[in-house]
Amino acid sequence: MEFTVKQIAAMLNGKVEGDESLKINQLAKIEEARAGQISFLSNPKYESYLYTTQAAAVIVGQDFDPKKDFSTTLIRVENAYTAFTKLLEEYEKILKGHKIGIEQPSYVGASTQLGQNIYLGAFAYVGSNTHIGNDVKIYPQAYVGDNVQIGDNTIIHPGVRIYNNTIIGKNCVIFANSVVGGDGFGFAPQPDGSYRTIPQLGNVIIEDNVNIGSNVTIDCATMGSTIIREGVKLDNLIQVAHNVEIGKNTVMAAQSGIAGSTKVGENCVVGGQVAIIGHITVADRTQMGGQSGVNRSVKEPGKALNGTPAMDMKDSLRSLAMFRKLPEMDKKLKELETRLNELDD
Amino acid sequence: MEFTVKQIAAMLNGKVEGDESLKINQLAKIEEARAGQISFLSNPKYESYLYTTQAAAVIVGQDFDPKKDFSTTLIRVENAYTAFTKLLEEYEKILKGHKIGIEQPSYVGASTQLGQNIYLGAFAYVGSNTHIGNDVKIYPQAYVGDNVQIGDNTIIHPGVRIYNNTIIGKNCVIFANSVVGGDGFGFAPQPDGSYRTIPQLGNVIIEDNVNIGSNVTIDCATMGSTIIREGVKLDNLIQVAHNVEIGKNTVMAAQSGIAGSTKVGENCVVGGQVAIIGHITVADRTQMGGQSGVNRSVKEPGKALNGTPAMDMKDSLRSLAMFRKLPEMDKKLKELETRLNELDD
Amino acid sequence: MEFTVKQIAAMLNGKVEGDESLKINQLAKIEEARAGQISFLSNPKYESYLYTTQAAAVIVGQDFDPKKDFSTTLIRVENAYTAFTKLLEEYEKILKGHKIGIEQPSYVGASTQLGQNIYLGAFAYVGSNTHIGNDVKIYPQAYVGDNVQIGDNTIIHPGVRIYNNTIIGKNCVIFANSVVGGDGFGFAPQPDGSYRTIPQLGNVIIEDNVNIGSNVTIDCATMGSTIIREGVKLDNLIQVAHNVEIGKNTVMAAQSGIAGSTKVGENCVVGGQVAIIGHITVADRTQMGGQSGVNRSVKEPGKALNGTPAMDMKDSLRSLAMFRKLPEMDKKLKELETRLNELDD
Repeated sequence: MEFTVKQIAAMLNGKVEGDESLKINQLAKIEEARAGQISFLSNPKYESYLYTTQAAAVIVGQDFDPKKDFSTTLIRVENAYTAFTKLLEEYEKILKGHKIGIEQPSYVGASTQLGQNIYLGAFAYVGSNTHIGNDVKIYPQAYVGDNVQIGDNTIIHPGVRIYNNTIIGKNCVIFANSVVGGDGFGFAPQPDGSYRTIPQLGNVIIEDNVNIGSNVTIDCATMGSTIIREGVKLDNLIQVAHNVEIGKNTVMAAQSGIAGSTKVGENCVVGGQVAIIGHITVADRTQMGGQSGVNRSVKEPGKALNGTPAMDMKDSLRSLAMFRKLPEMDKKLKELETRLNELDD
Repeated sequence: MEFTVKQIAAMLNGKVEGDESLKINQLAKIEEARAGQISFLSNPKYESYLYTTQAAAVIVGQDFDPKKDFSTTLIRVENAYTAFTKLLEEYEKILKGHKIGIEQPSYVGASTQLGQNIYLGAFAYVGSNTHIGNDVKIYPQAYVGDNVQIGDNTIIHPGVRIYNNTIIGKNCVIFANSVVGGDGFGFAPQPDGSYRTIPQLGNVIIEDNVNIGSNVTIDCATMGSTIIREGVKLDNLIQVAHNVEIGKNTVMAAQSGIAGSTKVGENCVVGGQVAIIGHITVADRTQMGGQSGVNRSVKEPGKALNGTPAMDMKDSLRSLAMFRKLPEMDKKLKELETRLNELDD
Repeated sequence: MEFTVKQIAAMLNGKVEGDESLKINQLAKIEEARAGQISFLSNPKYESYLYTTQAAAVIVGQDFDPKKDFSTTLIRVENAYTAFTKLLEEYEKILKGHKIGIEQPSYVGASTQLGQNIYLGAFAYVGSNTHIGNDVKIYPQAYVGDNVQIGDNTIIHPGVRIYNNTIIGKNCVIFANSVVGGDGFGFAPQPDGSYRTIPQLGNVIIEDNVNIGSNVTIDCATMGSTIIREGVKLDNLIQVAHNVEIGKNTVMAAQSGIAGSTKVGENCVVGGQVAIIGHITVADRTQMGGQSGVNRSVKEPGKALNGTPAMDMKDSLRSLAMFRKLPEMDKKLKELETRLNELDD
């Protein structure tokens, strides 16, 4: 990509102050921006960088009032952050490309319907009786089983595995090597100490606007469905067990896991490496600190939890502060005992 | 699938009480079953659902004695749970299909022997000098290296990677994107601060009836073998390091890991996100609570452990209960000190 | 492989004491070695095994002075450990094979340059405008996107996914199903409770001599680069978030994770299942115990940390020792209170 400041200002409905002929070939944070790059200033905390930046141009708000000299060109817009985000999105389209068409060799099973304007990469496999919506991208080496539905505009990255009977909504993105719909982990103990596999006959339902990171695993339900509600965002290496339901707009950081049959509410925020035990319910807007272990239902919405087992965040921080002082407490306890013994003598 | 109640009763050697012409197209839990579905009642805890269910039919025991009216049809059998499991297994066969044959393009190396009735999916890769048993299924895009042995009736799911020299038994299942036999993590520190790779020349041996979830990693031994004994069940995203041995019928929940050269006994139960340190031995039938960190050998069989570092489960729960009360203990300690100071004055 | 003791001694510049015609077909640890195998003795701790081993031959130092009788053949060399490592490396070459050439079908995009003596496995996919160095191996079913650079002698294992614009140095190894360059986890909360995706436009840079295990995920930067410096070694199932930088020769054990924008120093040692929070800096040579949670910057180099939240290792061990004694401390506290109450009466 290479644009002039003038072209970018036109795209953003902005007004240029400075040299509008400068060429821009990259976007950068204001504290890192160099010649040929464009940045933005929205948070006043970063204002000082404006006066020293070598960026070709900086996007600022209409009311921005500089307090020192500077050498960069300004593009004034209504909202600097929004304008920069728009620029990022445009740049993304150029950078990541618009794949379209069917590369060969690829495999499409019988009775499968492919939507319009799709991309199907080489070595991708789509089973039979499957329905792929319009504008869907299925990258090379991805696997989509039988009887699967994938909604319009969804992107399936390289090496993703979608098992039979999975239903995926519109505008979803699933990153590389994630697995959706593998068997739930269910085994019945036998008298001889071995285990017999309990058939896992359900499926996975992923609603619209869901993002799933790389190397995530989401198991199918034993019966019924494992459900990922609209707008959920899952980071990398997350485990979602059979019959789990994750509520609308809940966000989970990397390496967290939810055990079987648990229902997590809407708009929850789950830190990294959190474990949520099976067969519980977690209320809406619950926040779970990193590495927490949630081992009982959370009934009151909007609470912040921390620790293993998870407790109220403030109580957890208080107990952890004391944990650091345990050797000191123990010492004091022994002193008191000695003094009491002396008193008793 | 669509069967009549009469057909299902015949399959289960059951006796119908009610309308045997009703059509069944799905299985469901009794608390969720709707019209057209069949369920079962085994645990008396769920009896109340029988009187309100809209299920077409419910499988019950021969001695079941209803206490209220109900509208569903009963199928009486010797053991309701066993009968329902049989039905699940039959349904699974129909639902998951019997893949057979060799799809193209697929790759088979020189001197490799393929058994009878196998399935080899498109874009699957099988190296040279490898032996694939009868009735084996290798799904699309799976990789099997050179000098590998896979026993009869084993299923290798899409995107699984089996490195050279791996030996896998009969009736195993390995779910999507798991990796068996990657190099162990061994590096020798050098005087300049860098590390030199220690060659990892061993292999992985997986015995019969082992289940491995999705995105699991099992490293090959430095020399000798990493061994997964008969009947072991591993959930998703588990790490098994080089030279580990996991004993017969041990079960591990998701996101747990075992470090190098550790031997875990038979019939152990490992919770989710557990870490077991390297070079230790864990006795048979040890139970490890979720997120535990086992950092020393466990010699006595059958113990329950919890926490990091792992300790006896009861002791752990007692200490954790006190952990919650630490701020209170600290307060009391300060009060006692004050009172003692006053006494001393 | 099958060599005589004489041939191996010649390769190692060693001197044989015993039967130089014996045949060797495998390498083994001295405590496990059997007939037909060769082992080594370097650490005096293992000396007793020499007197009972059935190994065909054992490599020992020039000065080794046996204290008992033994039946194995000795090969005397300057440094037994170094000689055995050389043997391991030679054996590795034979065992793992020298793949070379381009298998079909494979996919190479427009304007992509392939180096000399490369291996490109069947069903591998290489995008457009990509540069592959000399002696590179790209195993079957691996994916390399557009505008990627891969340095000489690097090995990309089966099912690895390298996203667009990634730069990888020389002599790197990336094991199966790892993902390099997936989108960072960045979402802007919207007034209605949903999240809007923040475009992730940066890339990943991996310097020379880096080893990456299986099923690892390394996200691309939002802007700029996620950087893995020279000589870094990552075990399996590790998460590296966007804009992270890992310093030279740092080693991380399995299932650990680093959150966004954190900089980890050089020559650090990170245990298994460690979590490092985002936006912090960790000094050089920091050691982090298994399952630690590092939640603030570490400024002093060379410290050992442990626990969640991570604290000085010695302090952590002291507090953990007290944690075990908490019920006892609580009991004593109550006793003291009772005694004080009695005194007060």
